[in-house]
Amino acid sequence: MPEAPDWANDPETQVLSENRDGVLLLTLNRPDRLNAWNPVMAERLFGLMSAADDDPGVRVVVVTGAGRGFCAGADMEALSMVEGAAGSGFEHGERPLSFPTTLRKPVIAAINGPAAGVGLVVALFADLRFAAEDAKLTTAFSRLGLVAEYGIAWHLPRLVGAARALDLLLSSRIVLGDEAERIGLVNRALPRDQVLDAALDHARILAEGSSPASMAWIKAQVYRGMDSDLTAACEEAAALMPEAFAGADFSEGLAAHLAKRTPDFAGLPPRERG
Amino acid sequence: MPEAPDWANDPETQVLSENRDGVLLLTLNRPDRLNAWNPVMAERLFGLMSAADDDPGVRVVVVTGAGRGFCAGADMEALSMVEGAAGSGFEHGERPLSFPTTLRKPVIAAINGPAAGVGLVVALFADLRFAAEDAKLTTAFSRLGLVAEYGIAWHLPRLVGAARALDLLLSSRIVLGDEAERIGLVNRALPRDQVLDAALDHARILAEGSSPASMAWIKAQVYRGMDSDLTAACEEAAALMPEAFAGADFSEGLAAHLAKRTPDFAGLPPRERG
Amino acid sequence: MPEAPDWANDPETQVLSENRDGVLLLTLNRPDRLNAWNPVMAERLFGLMSAADDDPGVRVVVVTGAGRGFCAGADMEALSMVEGAAGSGFEHGERPLSFPTTLRKPVIAAINGPAAGVGLVVALFADLRFAAEDAKLTTAFSRLGLVAEYGIAWHLPRLVGAARALDLLLSSRIVLGDEAERIGLVNRALPRDQVLDAALDHARILAEGSSPASMAWIKAQVYRGMDSDLTAACEEAAALMPEAFAGADFSEGLAAHLAKRTPDFAGLPPRERG
Repeated sequence: MPEAPDWANDPETQVLSENRDGVLLLTLNRPDRLNAWNPVMAERLFGLMSAADDDPGVRVVVVTGAGRGFCAGADMEALSMVEGAAGSGFEHGERPLSFPTTLRKPVIAAINGPAAGVGLVVALFADLRFAAEDAKLTTAFSRLGLVAEYGIAWHLPRLVGAARALDLLLSSRIVLGDEAERIGLVNRALPRDQVLDAALDHARILAEGSSPASMAWIKAQVYRGMDSDLTAACEEAAALMPEAFAGADFSEGLAAHLAKRTPDFAGLPPRERG
Repeated sequence: MPEAPDWANDPETQVLSENRDGVLLLTLNRPDRLNAWNPVMAERLFGLMSAADDDPGVRVVVVTGAGRGFCAGADMEALSMVEGAAGSGFEHGERPLSFPTTLRKPVIAAINGPAAGVGLVVALFADLRFAAEDAKLTTAFSRLGLVAEYGIAWHLPRLVGAARALDLLLSSRIVLGDEAERIGLVNRALPRDQVLDAALDHARILAEGSSPASMAWIKAQVYRGMDSDLTAACEEAAALMPEAFAGADFSEGLAAHLAKRTPDFAGLPPRERG
Repeated sequence: MPEAPDWANDPETQVLSENRDGVLLLTLNRPDRLNAWNPVMAERLFGLMSAADDDPGVRVVVVTGAGRGFCAGADMEALSMVEGAAGSGFEHGERPLSFPTTLRKPVIAAINGPAAGVGLVVALFADLRFAAEDAKLTTAFSRLGLVAEYGIAWHLPRLVGAARALDLLLSSRIVLGDEAERIGLVNRALPRDQVLDAALDHARILAEGSSPASMAWIKAQVYRGMDSDLTAACEEAAALMPEAFAGADFSEGLAAHLAKRTPDFAGLPPRERG
C-alpha cells in the first residue's frame, strides 16, 4: 500500500467555507499546491454547495482559491497514482464536475490566479466568472495526452463559439484574463487584487436584488434550454409562468418596482425530495 | 367588472404600419407608456407581420417604437390584473412571441430606446437589431420574481453565449446599446437619432439586393439548424439546392453577377396553405 | 456534348501538396480564377486530406490558396452548366463539404484573400482560421438566389452567434478579416503577407506540443458535442479517460510536464477500418 497523500486525511481543510450575509464564500485551500484538485477536495466542495442549495440563508455561492492560484489542475500525485491503475480513471466521488449547473443558486468563480485543466473546468461550470486580468487559463489536456475532460468539449463552444473552443482545446495555449473577457470565456477581467471583491459585490447585488425563486427557475431554464428546442423552451416558460405570477416574489417584486424601492425577497426553502 | 384598459378599445392605434418601397415599418405606438406591451398590441403586431409575409409587396419588416422608448415591458396595469388571476398567465393571443422567427421575411428591430422584459424578448426574436448606443436593455424578470419568459432562456445563450446570457438573466442589469453591440446582443449600435434610418437603410439593401426566395430559405434553415444536427442540416441544404438552381432568382442573380449590375428579383408569392 | 472545362483534365494541379515536417500544406491552385471551386478540386482536396489522416507523418493540415485569393466560390462555368440541368445540383463527389470536421487531425485555413460562397464554407469547415486583415469574406448565396449551402446555416450561428449569422447570410455583405476576427468568424487576422507563415507556425506548435491522440479525441468530442447533450458529453469523456490514462501520450506528456521539457509524442497510426 502506498502512503496516503496528505489531503486524504484532512477533508475539512481542503475547502474553507464562510457565509457573508447570504453569500457563501468557498475557498479552495491548498495554497502551497496552487489548490491542485483531488477527490477529497471535490467531495468537500460539492458537499458544501449541495448543503448551500438547501440553506435558505444562502442566496449566491462564490468559489475562489487561497493564495496565488485558483486551481492548477489535477493533483500530480493523484494523477501519477492513476497512471499505474489504468481503467480506473481519476475519481471525483459521486458528483460530476458539472454539478454546480444543477444547483438552484448562482455560482460565481473568482479566478484569482492560474486555472488549468480540471481547474479550468471547475471555473467553467460556475455560472459567472470574474478573473484577474493576468490570470493564466489553459485547458492543458492536449499537452498531457488526455481527452477533453468532464464535459468541457460540450460547454466551451457554447461559451466562446466553436472555433475559439477548438483553438483553446487543441493547443492548450495560455489565455490571460484580458483575452478571456474579450472572447466571452469570463464575464469580467479586473486587476488581481480586485477580483474577489468584485465577485463578492456582484454576488451581493444578486442576493439583494434578484428573486431567489427567479434565479432558480432561470438557471434551470438556461441549462435545459441548451439541450432543448425552441418550442419546448417556450412551452416550459409558459408552464412556469402561472406559478411565478401566483408567487410571493412576484407580489413583492411588482410592489417594489412600482414604489421604486429595493425588493425584500424571502430565501428559497429547501428543495423538496421525492 | 373592472373598467377595460384604454388599449382594449383601440387596436388599430396600438401599432402603426407603413410600407416604404417594400420595407414595412411597424411602430409600437403607446409613446406615453413607453409602448408597454399588452395583448391587443401583440395581436395587432403579429397580425400585421403575418399579412406582410403573404404580401409580395413587402420584402423586409422593420419594428420600432414611437417616442422615447422601444417597449418598456408588459403593461403594469395588465400585469396587476394577472396578479389577481393566478393560473391564467399573461395572454398574448394565438401566437407565441417567437412568431417572427417563423416568417419568410427578415424582421429588423430598430431599438430607439428602452427595451425591458417582454419588450426585450420582442427585440430578440427579430432577426437583426440596430440599437441606440444609449438605449437601456434589461431582461427584468429576476427583479420581478418571474421566470425567463417566452423562450428567452433558449435564445439568449445562442446570441451571446451561455455566461453572458446567465449574467443578463440572473441580474437583470441594464446593458446599454454600446455593450450590447460588443457582446453580440445587437448587430449595431448608433447615435439615437440615426437608429431608425440605419435600420431602414439596411432593410432597403436587403430588399434590393437579396433574393426574397433566398432570404426565406436561409431564415428557415438558420432557425431549424439551431435544433438539428449537422448531418440533417447538410441534407436539408442538399435537398433545397435543385429547387434553387431551377428558380428564376438564380438565373437573375447569376446574370446580374456576371454583368456586375444590381439584380432585379421578383417579390415572394403568398405562402401556399394546405 | 459541351467541351470539358480545363479542370476536368488535370486533377493533380488543382491542389498542390507539400509535407513540411509533419505539417501538410495544401494549396488550392487555380490562381487565374481565384481558385474557384469545382468538383475535381473538391475530390482532390478531400482525397489528400483523407490520405493525410492515415499518414503518421502528418500531424496538422493547412489549406491556403495560390495567388491573390483563397477561393472565390463555385466555378461560374460549372454553375452555368448546372443551371441548364435543374435537379442535379452542383456535384462535389463523394464527400460533403463538412468532411474536414470528421478528420482526426486539425485543419487550419490560411485565408490569404477572397473567400466567397462555397469558398467561405470550405474555410468555415476548417477547425481554425487565420485571415488577411483585408481579405474579403462573403456568404454570397442570397445575392444569387441560392440557399445557405452545405451546412453553413447550421455552422455559422455556432461560430458567431445567431444574429451575426443571420446578418451575414441574409445580406451577403462583405466582411473584412479584421471584423471577422472581432466577431469570432476567424481566429486571427494579420497583414496579408504574414497569414500563411502564422498559420504554418501555429500548425508547427500543434504538431510539436500537442498529443496527436489528444487532438483526435478532442476534435471528435467538440463536433459531436454540438449535437449532443451535456450528460452524453460527460459520459463520453468519462468513457474515454481510462484509454487516455493508459496511453503512451499520457506517460510522455506527464513526464515532459514534470521535467519542464517539450514532449515527444509519436504520430497517430492509421485509422482502423472495420
